[in-house]
Amino acid sequence: MDSRQGHPEPDSESPPVPRSPKLKASSKLNRWSMARALRSGVKIIDRPINAPHRQATTEEADRKTSAIDGDDVAAGKSIYLVSDGTGWTAEHSVNAALGQFEDRLVNRGCSVNTHLFSWVEDEEKLLEIINQAAKQKAMCFYTLANPSMSKSAKEACDQLGVLSVDILGPIIEGIASHLGVSPSGLTRGAPGRVKTLNDAYFKRIEAIEFTIKQDDGTLPENLGKADIILVGVSRTGKTPLSTYIAQKGYKVANVPFVMGVEPPKTLFEVEPRKVFALTIQLVVLQAIRRTRAKTLGVDTEGENRYSGFDLVRKELDFASKIYAKNPGWAVIDVTNKAIEETAAVILRLYHDSSDSSTSVPCISKRF
Amino acid sequence: MDSRQGHPEPDSESPPVPRSPKLKASSKLNRWSMARALRSGVKIIDRPINAPHRQATTEEADRKTSAIDGDDVAAGKSIYLVSDGTGWTAEHSVNAALGQFEDRLVNRGCSVNTHLFSWVEDEEKLLEIINQAAKQKAMCFYTLANPSMSKSAKEACDQLGVLSVDILGPIIEGIASHLGVSPSGLTRGAPGRVKTLNDAYFKRIEAIEFTIKQDDGTLPENLGKADIILVGVSRTGKTPLSTYIAQKGYKVANVPFVMGVEPPKTLFEVEPRKVFALTIQLVVLQAIRRTRAKTLGVDTEGENRYSGFDLVRKELDFASKIYAKNPGWAVIDVTNKAIEETAAVILRLYHDSSDSSTSVPCISKRF
Repeated sequence: MDSRQGHPEPDSESPPVPRSPKLKASSKLNRWSMARALRSGVKIIDRPINAPHRQATTEEADRKTSAIDGDDVAAGKSIYLVSDGTGWTAEHSVNAALGQFEDRLVNRGCSVNTHLFSWVEDEEKLLEIINQAAKQKAMCFYTLANPSMSKSAKEACDQLGVLSVDILGPIIEGIASHLGVSPSGLTRGAPGRVKTLNDAYFKRIEAIEFTIKQDDGTLPENLGKADIILVGVSRTGKTPLSTYIAQKGYKVANVPFVMGVEPPKTLFEVEPRKVFALTIQLVVLQAIRRTRAKTLGVDTEGENRYSGFDLVRKELDFASKIYAKNPGWAVIDVTNKAIEETAAVILRLYHDSSDSSTSVPCISKRF
Repeated sequence: MDSRQGHPEPDSESPPVPRSPKLKASSKLNRWSMARALRSGVKIIDRPINAPHRQATTEEADRKTSAIDGDDVAAGKSIYLVSDGTGWTAEHSVNAALGQFEDRLVNRGCSVNTHLFSWVEDEEKLLEIINQAAKQKAMCFYTLANPSMSKSAKEACDQLGVLSVDILGPIIEGIASHLGVSPSGLTRGAPGRVKTLNDAYFKRIEAIEFTIKQDDGTLPENLGKADIILVGVSRTGKTPLSTYIAQKGYKVANVPFVMGVEPPKTLFEVEPRKVFALTIQLVVLQAIRRTRAKTLGVDTEGENRYSGFDLVRKELDFASKIYAKNPGWAVIDVTNKAIEETAAVILRLYHDSSDSSTSVPCISKRF
């Protein structure tokens, strides 16, 4: 399961970014936006968040109200995600679960709209959202650290007939019982929880910066400093895969394999277990290349040079021969795999060779 | 709550990447690794995954067995995460929940070890893992799409006294009830679930590639194509923030503000609502810069130029003046904020200005 992995888009058909923003507002929204803005550090004096150009007319507010009343829910079923933090956990889990309803979503008997509400830290705001959920006939998922807030959420949902699920509650309870200690009940923004930015966090940031500087074979002299090195021909997904793995705290370098060009010497000097050689089915790569050439607006001759069947085959052969000469490299077929799937394969193989206290391969971490 | 956000490191104190890999194996592991390798597309003929150099001696296998027997659990409590997919959902949710036990983890009365098992798709493997969990006195979280597998997991855990929590089950049930349809029960790797790589997925990949090409002010002529533009002085976290937001499917450009250098003209031609101006407290920025200078091995004079109190203040002032002249830009204070927190603020403000069917700001998506 674990579909989509905090990246809601892979299985969704509509682009994630709304392209035609419209103005909207309400007095409540403005008050609340201002409060949020102050907390988020926006300099209100310089540029109020409810500046004139972002304010809405009364008509617009009216339109909005009728929308809230549920007149336009024909578009699809709504799911509310309410969090006292960033909301990524709720988003991630619900997107993964939606993977179990692909048929429904693809056939569009009914589409699903998710609405993510983050930093909901007071009860008034919480109840306002749940009231809206009831009006929209939405269901509600929540991740609220403060026990009194999650209790309120449950009670309000039950009372208003809103189907609700507490996502993190059972997980926290399980851990509390296992460790024999009580959870703090502190939200992400609470004063007691300010030490998020520790050494490990800065190591992660460093990994991301390393990975970007190292992209596309730049600085081969630094390959030895990488935790993981990806090699493969053009369009095997090295770049997005690198940045995805970097987000998890690993320094990733990638080296493109171009026919006739010898890879940098340093590549053959690093530990082979760090090198992951990407391969892909010929026809799939050719199709991806053809699409790419169109996107770039390359002319027909250039396109043929890049995506011609024979040339793509030769390039894959060229790479395969180098792979064969380096038996210590793991060869990963990325055909039809999403980057998070390939990342999971790579990280597992990477950790396979490390010490572990279990008899089956796993990724172990200490907190 | 929503701590750590699929990025286990922010609150953890140990680096995420083990640096001293050791050999290990068992006959079962080898059989299973081979099966996994075949499924993951590794070319077994070229380079068997259980190649001699990755195989272990009998002594090592014996050592391993004694470890499994729970002799070395003194190091900390164990948590098993078992998934039939990548396992990122389980990892993400449990890391978020662990944020509620920071005191315990920081004071180290007892540390916590998590072990992530991905692509557990058959019952034999599942039961082997749960048996190990029992021996290690671990607790077990699972995300298993196949109902018979999750039933087996629950039964085995109950029977062996392993505390267990089904993470995705309640979420899937909730959605099923809300939509009035049954979940597919298909795991991520199942034949019926191959259409992960649709248009939206490729748009996300494109966003990541755009973001990387655009990093650090390169190609200012392309700013108009970005969904989100980050501006700020050096070390306000523009690069890691860009790649994090790009993973969510947004094209992000970032433009560094350097004292005395005019930002590119194109920046002032894009829609102001797309521009997010990062600011940070003077002393914090100075400390970050000083650390950075040390990492880079810059000499004292160079370091002073970069992290000197007066100069850092002047540079922040320089940026502030440009921000003040552009009241349409949102100014975000990133002091002591993790990138996923800043990302949440930015995405919310970004979606704030778009049409929504609720009266409070939220990030809406359609599936």
